[in-house]
Amino acid sequence: MKRKLVAAAVALALGAGVAATARAQVKPEVLVKQRQSALTLLGKYFGPLGGMLKGAVPFDAAVVARNAGYLEVLAKMPWDGFAEGTKGEKSHALPAVWSDAAKFKQAQDHLQTAVASLVTVSKGGDEAKTKAAIGDVGKACGGCHDNFREKR
Amino acid sequence: MKRKLVAAAVALALGAGVAATARAQVKPEVLVKQRQSALTLLGKYFGPLGGMLKGAVPFDAAVVARNAGYLEVLAKMPWDGFAEGTKGEKSHALPAVWSDAAKFKQAQDHLQTAVASLVTVSKGGDEAKTKAAIGDVGKACGGCHDNFREKR
Repeated sequence: MKRKLVAAAVALALGAGVAATARAQVKPEVLVKQRQSALTLLGKYFGPLGGMLKGAVPFDAAVVARNAGYLEVLAKMPWDGFAEGTKGEKSHALPAVWSDAAKFKQAQDHLQTAVASLVTVSKGGDEAKTKAAIGDVGKACGGCHDNFREKR
Repeated sequence: MKRKLVAAAVALALGAGVAATARAQVKPEVLVKQRQSALTLLGKYFGPLGGMLKGAVPFDAAVVARNAGYLEVLAKMPWDGFAEGTKGEKSHALPAVWSDAAKFKQAQDHLQTAVASLVTVSKGGDEAKTKAAIGDVGKACGGCHDNFREKR
């Protein structure tokens, strides 16, 4: 049984086919799937906060603090999935991701800074300040989508 | 411009359609997508560690520590996506997810415990101990896949 589980673990590792030092070996379609997964989860955990900002969901400081912590980690995850080799893959990414890489990097940094502020502010429990910080994260999301993602 | 970005943020929040206190309102297909996203990212960040365990990738203590931190957060994310309402959705989840919920919960806890150990051990920088902890995480993945996911 133990051997079977180890085998399963190894199969899983091989299946993922990811080398820490050789991300370039990961298939482009896998990179796209991984980056979309990170962005889906950013949406999952930002969603309720946007709802609180709008007043559609009651403000809940504990949920904001928890989700902010998740967002901080998730905001690091999509970017290595936008490797040059994924240019030809079907996705909503605009060519500007690669033709204006510096601005794209700036947009990533903007998100990470806004989320870091939200993490700090959300610990204080001040509703108005927390909502302002949520708004800043939303703007960072929207700013990047405006410039680097197909309109839907 | 600012107004446009706020509008975009609100649209994003509405698009996600997620209420912190009302996860049941999230559409089943969205829940499936979100849980699959978390599992995809668990694969992304476990992959290189499995490669190190197997010897296919050089051991890199810094990568293990970083990825272990990511896995700790990600290991919390898939489970609320297995809501009863998603039973009828197309996915690789086996009926045991719902018919043997206690065992499924146990498998989730097992993963979280194994990842927590990896986080601790990986900080020590001991290669042998770290690899053993990676193996335990792999077994937790494999154990859950064996019982709760369609064979592929």
